Amino acid sequence: MLEEMFNPNSIAVVGASNNREKIGNILVRNIKTSYRGKLYPINLKEPEIEGLKAYSSLKEIGSKVDLVIISVPREAVVDVMMEAGEAGTRAAVIITSGFREVDEKGKELELKIMEVAKKYSIRFLGPNTMGFITPSFNATFAYEDVKQGNIAIVAQSGGMGAYMLDWAEKTKTGLSYFVSLGNQTDLNEIDIFHFLADDLNTKAIFSYIEGVADGERFLAEVPDITAKKPVVFIKGGTGKYGAMAVQTHTGSIAGSIELFRAAVKTVGGILVDNLDDFLNLVAIIQSDEKFLSDILVVTNSGGHGVLTTDEIERQSLSLINLTDSMKTELRKILPDQSTPKNPLDLSGDASGERFMMAMDLIKGLECTKIVLVQELATVSCVEVAKVLAKFKGRKIVGVMMGKDSESALRILSSAGIPGYNFPEDAVKAIKHIVNVRPPVKKIRISEPVKGSLDFIKGKSTLSDEFSFKLMSLYGIRVPEWDIVSTLDEAKSFCNKIGYPVVMKVSSDQPIHKTEIGGVIMNIDESNLESSFKTLISKMGKVMIQKQLNGVEVFLGGLNDASFGPSILTGPGGIYVEVLKSISYGLVPISENEALEMMTESKVLSLLQARKRNYDVDATIRAITGMSRMIEDLGIKEMDINPLIVTQDDAYAVDIRIVL
Amino acid sequence: MLEEMFNPNSIAVVGASNNREKIGNILVRNIKTSYRGKLYPINLKEPEIEGLKAYSSLKEIGSKVDLVIISVPREAVVDVMMEAGEAGTRAAVIITSGFREVDEKGKELELKIMEVAKKYSIRFLGPNTMGFITPSFNATFAYEDVKQGNIAIVAQSGGMGAYMLDWAEKTKTGLSYFVSLGNQTDLNEIDIFHFLADDLNTKAIFSYIEGVADGERFLAEVPDITAKKPVVFIKGGTGKYGAMAVQTHTGSIAGSIELFRAAVKTVGGILVDNLDDFLNLVAIIQSDEKFLSDILVVTNSGGHGVLTTDEIERQSLSLINLTDSMKTELRKILPDQSTPKNPLDLSGDASGERFMMAMDLIKGLECTKIVLVQELATVSCVEVAKVLAKFKGRKIVGVMMGKDSESALRILSSAGIPGYNFPEDAVKAIKHIVNVRPPVKKIRISEPVKGSLDFIKGKSTLSDEFSFKLMSLYGIRVPEWDIVSTLDEAKSFCNKIGYPVVMKVSSDQPIHKTEIGGVIMNIDESNLESSFKTLISKMGKVMIQKQLNGVEVFLGGLNDASFGPSILTGPGGIYVEVLKSISYGLVPISENEALEMMTESKVLSLLQARKRNYDVDATIRAITGMSRMIEDLGIKEMDINPLIVTQDDAYAVDIRIVL
Repeated sequence: MLEEMFNPNSIAVVGASNNREKIGNILVRNIKTSYRGKLYPINLKEPEIEGLKAYSSLKEIGSKVDLVIISVPREAVVDVMMEAGEAGTRAAVIITSGFREVDEKGKELELKIMEVAKKYSIRFLGPNTMGFITPSFNATFAYEDVKQGNIAIVAQSGGMGAYMLDWAEKTKTGLSYFVSLGNQTDLNEIDIFHFLADDLNTKAIFSYIEGVADGERFLAEVPDITAKKPVVFIKGGTGKYGAMAVQTHTGSIAGSIELFRAAVKTVGGILVDNLDDFLNLVAIIQSDEKFLSDILVVTNSGGHGVLTTDEIERQSLSLINLTDSMKTELRKILPDQSTPKNPLDLSGDASGERFMMAMDLIKGLECTKIVLVQELATVSCVEVAKVLAKFKGRKIVGVMMGKDSESALRILSSAGIPGYNFPEDAVKAIKHIVNVRPPVKKIRISEPVKGSLDFIKGKSTLSDEFSFKLMSLYGIRVPEWDIVSTLDEAKSFCNKIGYPVVMKVSSDQPIHKTEIGGVIMNIDESNLESSFKTLISKMGKVMIQKQLNGVEVFLGGLNDASFGPSILTGPGGIYVEVLKSISYGLVPISENEALEMMTESKVLSLLQARKRNYDVDATIRAITGMSRMIEDLGIKEMDINPLIVTQDDAYAVDIRIVL
Repeated sequence: MLEEMFNPNSIAVVGASNNREKIGNILVRNIKTSYRGKLYPINLKEPEIEGLKAYSSLKEIGSKVDLVIISVPREAVVDVMMEAGEAGTRAAVIITSGFREVDEKGKELELKIMEVAKKYSIRFLGPNTMGFITPSFNATFAYEDVKQGNIAIVAQSGGMGAYMLDWAEKTKTGLSYFVSLGNQTDLNEIDIFHFLADDLNTKAIFSYIEGVADGERFLAEVPDITAKKPVVFIKGGTGKYGAMAVQTHTGSIAGSIELFRAAVKTVGGILVDNLDDFLNLVAIIQSDEKFLSDILVVTNSGGHGVLTTDEIERQSLSLINLTDSMKTELRKILPDQSTPKNPLDLSGDASGERFMMAMDLIKGLECTKIVLVQELATVSCVEVAKVLAKFKGRKIVGVMMGKDSESALRILSSAGIPGYNFPEDAVKAIKHIVNVRPPVKKIRISEPVKGSLDFIKGKSTLSDEFSFKLMSLYGIRVPEWDIVSTLDEAKSFCNKIGYPVVMKVSSDQPIHKTEIGGVIMNIDESNLESSFKTLISKMGKVMIQKQLNGVEVFLGGLNDASFGPSILTGPGGIYVEVLKSISYGLVPISENEALEMMTESKVLSLLQARKRNYDVDATIRAITGMSRMIEDLGIKEMDINPLIVTQDDAYAVDIRIVL
C-alpha cells in the first residue's frame, strides 16, 4: 500500500491555490519541480494553477489517482476523503491541522476521517503533517533543496521535521526519505519504518518521537526493522512540562522516558538525549565501519588529548594500552623526549608526515582511533584529513579543531570517515553506536500458575495474606509469617519461629505502613507485648515475621498504558525514593536481563561489594518470578519493598498489589 | 610587576631567527606587526632580523629591557636569565619547552631557572608556554588575527590555548588578553587572574586548567577576583587516564575533580564539563544581563518547545506559570485554537509581527525568556533576531534554528543578546550563570581542643580507644562502648548497657572490619558467648557497643595535596562505595555548607523521606565537628562509617583515623 503513497503514478493536490503564500500553492510548486508523474491541482474556481490545468474535483479527473494530498479547511476533509475513496484512491496525505491536538470538535472530525478511510481502505498520513519527501519528489510545503542520500527522517513534529531538513541542507547530508507523521491517526511511525526498512536507498532511520501510539506493536515489530538497519530516536516530552506540551502539540501522550528507554534498548535501537547527539550520529552511521568501545586517541595537542580521554571515561568507554613493541616503533617517529602512550601525543611540532607515519603504525590495532588535530604552525586540519582519508576501513574518527576544520570535515566526509568539531561529540557518537544491543522480541503469553487466579478473582487489591501466598506460587520466598489478632496468638507464633521478629499492621488495603508508624522491628520477648498492643490498636490485625538481616532491594511492577507489563528494580527500603537508582525492563524479563537490570541499578554492587556474597541468583529468580506474575495475572501495579536478600535466598517482606 | 610584562616599553626576543619556520622568527614577526615600543631581536650571528637591527646579546643593547622573551635550547635558558637579571630586566617569558614535563634533567634545569629568577627578582611566565597576547601586541608564536574585545583567556595547555584563539577568531569573539601559562614555575594562574581582575578591558576570565599549583592560595585569593568579574573554568584530567596524561603534558598533578569542583563553588567561580559549554558561556557573560533561573520559552515550533522544556527540567531550572491576565492578552494575538502556556507556542504560521506583539506582552515578566525560532514559510530567524534586538535588557536568550541562523546570531550578538544554535546550549549556559555562588573565603586556624593533642602525639594511626575518646572532645557522640578481652568483661558490660549489642574486633591499626568478618550484630544473651569467641580469636580484643537503629551516613576527611583539609559526606555503610553519592566540601565547613552537602549527597532526603524525622541538626554538628578536628589536628585521612543518625542524635559507630 505504501508503494502507492511513496511511488505514485499520479498525484492530486486538493486545495491547490494560485496564492503563492498558501500551502496549497507551495505544495503544487514543490511537487511540480521534482515529480515526473501526472499532477492534478484541484480547485473549485481556478482553471489553471502554476501552469497546470486545474480540476474542480477529483471526480472531474476521470481516472484513478494514486495519491491525494489534502490541504483544505478541516470541516471539508471528510468529504474530500469520501470523494477520493469513491474515485478508487487508496493513499492520502492530510496536511490540514486543527484536529485532536486542538479541541473536542477536532477530535470528532478526526474520528470521522478514520471511519471514512476504513470504509474505502484508504491509508493516510496525518492530519497535521507537513508531508513527505521521496528520492523522486517533494510533497511538503516547506523546503525544496535537500541533497539526495541515504538517511531517512521520520518526525512526529512538523517543526522538528522542518529543522532536520534545514540541518540536512546546511550540512549537505543526503536524505532518502523525509516523513512528517503528524497526528498518526492511521499510519504511524512503525508503518513508515517497515517501508524504509526494505527501501534500498535508506541506510538508517532517524526518528523524532513524542509518544508511541502502540507500544505492543513497537515491541513486536521494531526488532525486525533494527535487524535490517539502524534506527535512532530522539524523544520529546521527557520532563513533566515537556510531556504536557506534547499533548497540546501533536495530541500524543508522552509516556515515561524510562520505559521508552527500556523499549528502545530491547528492540535494538539507539536513543539519544539531545539534538546535537542525534545529528552527530549521522556521520558515524554513514561510514559503515564497525567501531569498537576500546579507543586509542591520537593528537598533536596534549590538552585536547586530556579532555578527550576524560570524556571517554565519562562515557564508560575504554582506552587501550599500547604494547611495548608498538611503543618502540612509535618512539622512532616521535621527538626525543616524548613517551608513546594513550592518548598518543604526536607533539605540537607534528607534521602531516608524522601523522602519516603514526597512522601507518597503528592502523592494524583492534580499536577505534580518535584522531584529534589542533591546527598549529606545522600542520593543518586539511593535511591530517587527507592522511586519514588513506586509512578508510581502519575504524577512524576525526576531530578537526582548526580554522580550516570545515574544509577538513568535507574531506573526511567524502572519504567516508566520520568527522566532528568537538571531542565530546565524537566520543558520544561512538558510545551510542557501540552500545546498540541485538534486538529482542518480547513474546507475552499469559499462563497463570495453577491456583493463582483463585487469589485474585474479583478483587481490586490483595490482602497481606493472599499477597504472601501468591508469592510462593511464583517461586518468590517469604519469611515465616502469620497474621494474628490476639496477644496469645502472637506469643505462640513468636516462640515457634524465634526472635528477633518484626511486627506490622496488616490491612486488606495497600497502605504505606512505615508512614503511619505501623512497623516495629527488633522485637524480642521483652517488648513483644507493648509492640503488639501498639499495632493492634491501629488496624485490628498484626502480621508477624521472622526478622531477617540482608540487603534491601526494591522490586516494582506496572502495566504501562503504552508498553504493557514492566518491571522496576533498585536499592530498596527508603533508598528507592531517595536515590531513584532504578532500572526498568519490559516483561517477560529473562535471567540475563534481570542481571543487567541489577547491574544498571547498582543492586548487584550492593550484593557483592566488600566481598559480600548475598544471593544474586535468588534475586534474579525473584525478578523473573515477578515478571511472570505480572504477565499472567494482569496485575496493574505491585511492589515488593523490601525484598531482603540474604546470603542464602531472597525474601519478599512487604508486598503491595493492585489488580 | 606584571605591568612590565604586559605593558613593556621595550621587548627583547632572545633566540630570534631569520628562518621563517622557527618560533624565534614568528615571535619577532608577531610582535613587530602589533607592538609600538622598542623591539630587540637577539641572535649571536645575524646582523638583522625581519628588517630590525639584531643584537648578539642583551648586554649589547646597552639599556634596560622591560621584557625578555626567551626561545633558545633548554640548556641555554639559565644563562639568558642571568644575563637578563644583570641587565636589570624584571619580566621574562620562557617559550622553550622540555623541562619538568619531560625528564629529570629538565626538572633540574627548571629549578635552576627559578633560583636565578629569585636572585634577580625576575618574574617569569613558563617555561613551555606559547606566550601571551595583550590589547597592544601579540607575543605568541602561533596566531595573528584575533579581534580585540573583553574576554581574557588563561590556558595551561598550549594546544588548548591555540584552539581557543582559533575559536575566538572563527566566532569573531573579541579578546582582551590571552595568556598561555605553561609549567607555571613562577607565575601561575592566580597571578595572572589578579592582573586581569583589575584590567579595565577585561569583562570575564576563561581558564583552561589542569592542576592547581597552590590550592590554599586559590582558596584565599580567587574570591577577590570573582568578586570583581566572572571566572569560568574548564578542567583537564578529570578521569584516571586524563590525569596521567596531564602529568606528562604540563607537568601538573591533576588532583581530584570533586575537590576542584568544591573549590570553584566556594570561590564563586563557574566550572563547566566540556569545551562546548565553556565557549557557550561567552555570549551570556558578555550580555551583562542578570538572568534568572525561572524561564519562559517562546517558540514557533511545538517540537522545539518540548525539547527545550525537557532540557530545562534536566538542568533543574524552572518554568514559570503565566497568569490568567497574561493568557487573556496572549490569546488576542494567537490563532483561535491555540492555548497560551509555557512553552508558549506562537504556532507554525507566526510572523515576525506576531513575535513582536508577543515580546511586547511578555517583556516585563520577571524571568529569563528563551526565544526559539524555527525558520518557516512565514518567518525567518533574521526577522525574529531583529525583533529581539529591540528588547535588550529584558533577559532574553535567542536560539536560532534556521538556514539563516548565522546571520541571525550576528544580529543578536551586535545587540548584546546571547544567541545559540541549540536549545540545550542556551539552557546549560543559563544554568551555569544562575548557579554562581557568592565567593566565600576559607580561613583556616588550628585551635586544638584541650587534651586532643595528647591522643595523637607521636602516633601515625589511632587505636579504637583513642579515636572514640577524641570524638567526644569534638562534640561527636558515640554509642556506649567498651573494649574487653575476657568473656566475663564482655558479659558484665553487656548486662550494664542492655541488648541487642554489636561486637567488633578491635585493633590499633585501621582495618576494614567487615571484610574480615570482624563485626557481629544483633547479639543478645543467647549468642553472646559464641560471638565473643569468634571475634576474640581474630585480634585479641573486642569492642562492644550498644546496637543503634537509624540511618547510616558516611563522613570522610582528608588532607588534599592541593586544597588541604576537606570533608566528604554521603549515604553510609555499604552505600558509600556502591552509590558514590558523595558531596565534597572544604574545611572549615559552616553549618550552612554542611546542610548543602547533605542536600547534594541526598543524606538529607534519607533523614527526612517518608515523614521520618532523623536528627538533621546532630548530623550537621558531626560534620562541622569533624571539620574542626581535621583542621586542628592535622589529620591526614579519617572516616566515620557509619555515623548512625537516630531521631535524637548522631553517633559515630566506626572510626578510622590516619595522622
